[in-house]
Amino acid sequence: MKLATKFGLAAALTALPTLGFAQDAVAGIDASSDSIFILNSLLFLVGGFLVFWMAAGFAMLEAGLVRGKNVTMQLTKNIALFSLAAIFYYLIGYNLMYPLGTWSVDGVLSGVWGPGVLEAVGVTRDAADDYGYASTGSDFFFQLMFCATTASIVSGTLAERIKLWPFLIFTIVLTAIIYPLQASWKWGGGFLDEAGFLDFAGSTVVHSVGGWAALTGAIILGPRIGKYKDGKTVPMPGSNLTLATLGTFILWLGWFGFNGGSQLAMGTVGDVADVSRIFANTNTAAAGGAIAALLLTQILYKKPDLTMVLNGALAGLVSITAEPLTPTLGSATLIGAVGGVIVVFAVPFLDKLKIDDVVGAIPVHLIAGIWGTIAVVLTNSDASLGTQLYSIVVVGIFTVVASGLVWFILKVTMGIRVTEEDEINGLDMAELGMEAYPEFSKG
Amino acid sequence: MKLATKFGLAAALTALPTLGFAQDAVAGIDASSDSIFILNSLLFLVGGFLVFWMAAGFAMLEAGLVRGKNVTMQLTKNIALFSLAAIFYYLIGYNLMYPLGTWSVDGVLSGVWGPGVLEAVGVTRDAADDYGYASTGSDFFFQLMFCATTASIVSGTLAERIKLWPFLIFTIVLTAIIYPLQASWKWGGGFLDEAGFLDFAGSTVVHSVGGWAALTGAIILGPRIGKYKDGKTVPMPGSNLTLATLGTFILWLGWFGFNGGSQLAMGTVGDVADVSRIFANTNTAAAGGAIAALLLTQILYKKPDLTMVLNGALAGLVSITAEPLTPTLGSATLIGAVGGVIVVFAVPFLDKLKIDDVVGAIPVHLIAGIWGTIAVVLTNSDASLGTQLYSIVVVGIFTVVASGLVWFILKVTMGIRVTEEDEINGLDMAELGMEAYPEFSKG
Amino acid sequence: MKLATKFGLAAALTALPTLGFAQDAVAGIDASSDSIFILNSLLFLVGGFLVFWMAAGFAMLEAGLVRGKNVTMQLTKNIALFSLAAIFYYLIGYNLMYPLGTWSVDGVLSGVWGPGVLEAVGVTRDAADDYGYASTGSDFFFQLMFCATTASIVSGTLAERIKLWPFLIFTIVLTAIIYPLQASWKWGGGFLDEAGFLDFAGSTVVHSVGGWAALTGAIILGPRIGKYKDGKTVPMPGSNLTLATLGTFILWLGWFGFNGGSQLAMGTVGDVADVSRIFANTNTAAAGGAIAALLLTQILYKKPDLTMVLNGALAGLVSITAEPLTPTLGSATLIGAVGGVIVVFAVPFLDKLKIDDVVGAIPVHLIAGIWGTIAVVLTNSDASLGTQLYSIVVVGIFTVVASGLVWFILKVTMGIRVTEEDEINGLDMAELGMEAYPEFSKG
Repeated sequence: MKLATKFGLAAALTALPTLGFAQDAVAGIDASSDSIFILNSLLFLVGGFLVFWMAAGFAMLEAGLVRGKNVTMQLTKNIALFSLAAIFYYLIGYNLMYPLGTWSVDGVLSGVWGPGVLEAVGVTRDAADDYGYASTGSDFFFQLMFCATTASIVSGTLAERIKLWPFLIFTIVLTAIIYPLQASWKWGGGFLDEAGFLDFAGSTVVHSVGGWAALTGAIILGPRIGKYKDGKTVPMPGSNLTLATLGTFILWLGWFGFNGGSQLAMGTVGDVADVSRIFANTNTAAAGGAIAALLLTQILYKKPDLTMVLNGALAGLVSITAEPLTPTLGSATLIGAVGGVIVVFAVPFLDKLKIDDVVGAIPVHLIAGIWGTIAVVLTNSDASLGTQLYSIVVVGIFTVVASGLVWFILKVTMGIRVTEEDEINGLDMAELGMEAYPEFSKG
Repeated sequence: MKLATKFGLAAALTALPTLGFAQDAVAGIDASSDSIFILNSLLFLVGGFLVFWMAAGFAMLEAGLVRGKNVTMQLTKNIALFSLAAIFYYLIGYNLMYPLGTWSVDGVLSGVWGPGVLEAVGVTRDAADDYGYASTGSDFFFQLMFCATTASIVSGTLAERIKLWPFLIFTIVLTAIIYPLQASWKWGGGFLDEAGFLDFAGSTVVHSVGGWAALTGAIILGPRIGKYKDGKTVPMPGSNLTLATLGTFILWLGWFGFNGGSQLAMGTVGDVADVSRIFANTNTAAAGGAIAALLLTQILYKKPDLTMVLNGALAGLVSITAEPLTPTLGSATLIGAVGGVIVVFAVPFLDKLKIDDVVGAIPVHLIAGIWGTIAVVLTNSDASLGTQLYSIVVVGIFTVVASGLVWFILKVTMGIRVTEEDEINGLDMAELGMEAYPEFSKG
Repeated sequence: MKLATKFGLAAALTALPTLGFAQDAVAGIDASSDSIFILNSLLFLVGGFLVFWMAAGFAMLEAGLVRGKNVTMQLTKNIALFSLAAIFYYLIGYNLMYPLGTWSVDGVLSGVWGPGVLEAVGVTRDAADDYGYASTGSDFFFQLMFCATTASIVSGTLAERIKLWPFLIFTIVLTAIIYPLQASWKWGGGFLDEAGFLDFAGSTVVHSVGGWAALTGAIILGPRIGKYKDGKTVPMPGSNLTLATLGTFILWLGWFGFNGGSQLAMGTVGDVADVSRIFANTNTAAAGGAIAALLLTQILYKKPDLTMVLNGALAGLVSITAEPLTPTLGSATLIGAVGGVIVVFAVPFLDKLKIDDVVGAIPVHLIAGIWGTIAVVLTNSDASLGTQLYSIVVVGIFTVVASGLVWFILKVTMGIRVTEEDEINGLDMAELGMEAYPEFSKG
């Protein structure tokens, strides 16, 4: 998001060009600022439910790309991780991201870890003055979805071999602490924001963080049994490509909320025009990523590869996320296309390193996320390459260290990997006793 | 919905704090009340299409939870029941719910069963005055979706053994008469509304009614062949858990419209803040239900049960539906969690009673619906436990008697159950001659 | 859309009844016209993302209706065609549809094929005056989705036998030139618009064009091997009816944006009431189509046919698309029902002609599209049957000739049909080397 939602509230309020305080005299009610408040909140609500929908997208994408014997587990992880993110971001994360003191309108969330976190969100019906520029409830709803997205990224990479509960405990730490802490550095008005770091909707803050956490986990966890044999990568095709395609379309749709909502305002002509531009750019970047991957796999392998095309579209989306506003449609298409190219080369490269990323989340979210963060300097003259790189590195080191520590503790205490036998039989029967497609005989 | 959409129109109009009639002088146009009208209508439209989407959610959930041989039938029932609801709620139900006389703006629906029902909905372009607080078309669209939801609830419980046409005839009676009649008691400004009954978005009015109708049908229809054998419950696992999960995510998404739209207004700062709070509470209640079911099945069975987690999330949603506005986030999470607990215990309990509910709709919609209706008293001081219980009972008795009568008549006239042979072979081939997955060999 | 988005801008601006220029004096800002601009843009954005979602609907519908051996290919075609549409409509089509000179607000798209096409869309934040009635970005986003829909229609008909690349090249020509050129005749303010042709959201401009292109392709391509044998039609059932049903629900949902957004304005009371009416009519037309097909297949074949019901719903939607505003709910239901009847008769009729339309897109989009365009005269007194027929014929001849030419060139240069062996083995393994459901053994 281009400005710190909370920290920058006062600034935002004075900066909005069309607030029209001149109308205040009329009946004590400022119709114009009311309308801005309503439309800004509406943007958060619509953006928020679109980003919520991405949770379903990740679930379908991952369920489609794992093998049939691990589908129930992947579904369970996805619905559980979203639910845990909802609860722990509320209990801890939201307060950590926008700490006490910078935001205390209307008795809302009144402290970090204090009992105030149980108070209702939202302004009251009577609060005619001083209610900020959007409702707290809508902001919380929107912010939560970003936190949950970060967690969704991790589950795909580590599929087919990680135990359920250690994964869920990691999710709690990620959504309660790791994500909110680093997000506060940019979106809470912290030191990266002050340094001039630009990350509109989170190529770094969301996607690279999910990607770093996934990468760290993948290294500590190790590859699936049989994935790398005699120096060769053994293909383990996903069980259901229609689901994977559906998941990609869902994510693409949700991304309009992800990037468009990050404008954080829709109550003025300028803001709605910006949101519109963001929608168009987001869409074309995805198209660019998909077509780049289509052409490249046709050229390299003589056969287009659907999973690469899907991940290409997603990489295009991640690439444009750090700056979806300033590029022209042409630039946005090209920025997305580079994301698609990245995927086609990064997937086999990770395999060469024997880093086993089941769904390709590291190329899509981490590597394209880094690319997108750097690409900001191409179209936004306010961006400095040094600051962008510095911020990528700072966030990366923090996330790798923090999540590495958590993974390590989980590994030595409860263990994070299922037994060899369970992995071969599939997690569905071993850990859950329930198959996703019990009736269909396997070939 | 917290106030009768139609009956309470005049009251709503005078109560809205920011109508700003002072601006009426300007060019004869009241920009502020125009804006309120537009935003209220927009809430109905967005809420309405989200609730429409729930029809797809029910279809996927149920198609995933029935066995492969009954999938085509379940899909057919779902698309047909929604279509019938659309037609019969328009022809009869809507008029029955908001009867003649209380609502006659602009030549809209002009009478019960009269020819007026064929008139176009919506205010005309010229109607600058007196057009109420939202467009009739948007209200009709939104209300219709609630009626259709009630019908969707029934189809899952009775799956795998009920004949297509009797089920569809029941749907017609339910959506044309049973649902609208009892809904008018609360939302049409009837005696339950006057008694002080509180049911914001329909834990009782929608969900329990669907649940009661399903329960009545399940008892009259009897369990599936082989479901209860030698005092034991035979598991009949669903054929496709990815679909079931997708359906749950769809329902979760649609519920933002279901509960948020039931605020019935978004044109003031207070209203949009309330809608925001409702979104956040609805989400966290679902999360609470999912996590409660996850933990509880882990504790009870040592293995988390995905279908319980999915139904737990849905039960959380139903539980918060009667009052999604007043709870804090913490309370909402706990109210939802109780819903999740209910599901885990109610599913085997129904089996003990040999009531065969294929998808778990009775625990989710009826029992959690009752819980949600009672839970209103925990967070809303306007609610009286006595009135809540009284209303639950009144609606329950009416629905059981009315739908029992219809089921009974259908049973003795055309029969409601397929033959034993057809049931064993599956309804898809027997009644439709068409398999959902014709190519996949069954194991 | 009822008026030419671009061409008619000036007219639209003066015609809007509630612009309230009287308020201009206040601080130089016209809150009322700002609010109209914002709400109009919002309609395009919400409508646009709903129509985007239809791309997923087509993908699921088609993936469900082809046989398992061609699913990956169908998915690949769908995601690729949407992406190509996004890029080529931007590069060429949008300019062709609204040519240079008629639209030059704010340095946006400045010429056909000129470098201007790479400029950013959208008004700038400072542009307080003269910014038209909605943001260019939102309009572009919305218009693009209509172009992509046209391309989506074609892919289903030609499934299971057309090569990937020729199909994609056709898509480029269709979205860059054929669609925009004919669309400009109506929506660009061209000669059909001047002649009084009425096509609100594109029964002819979008659906029949996709249908004609599909028909032309189907004739040139020929039927699938074994489809017509000894004078009989061999059924080739789709592999996954849950996906087909999901796709239908997605399309139904997206259609609210398709028709509702085509009101092109939501910033006044009259406009939002119209949008509401359109939502309600669109919904009931789909219901009418579904129920008509359900009843008719029950009567004709003694067994309801789910694929007919699904296509019936879609045909109902196409039928109401040319005029979703003026019909009453009753008329809309009947107009949709006729669409459902058309499907039931047209599908076997095409088979009799040995025109092999894999998913039934020609009955749904072309024949119901023609019906819908004619049906305008039933409810809209401004429509002339002669003009409607004339326009249908003009658009039809143009599309058949233009797409026939492209198909023919593709056929004689690179060939459009896969080898007999590849067709029998399935396109997935032959052209892509990747199965959609690799684990499930085929029965």
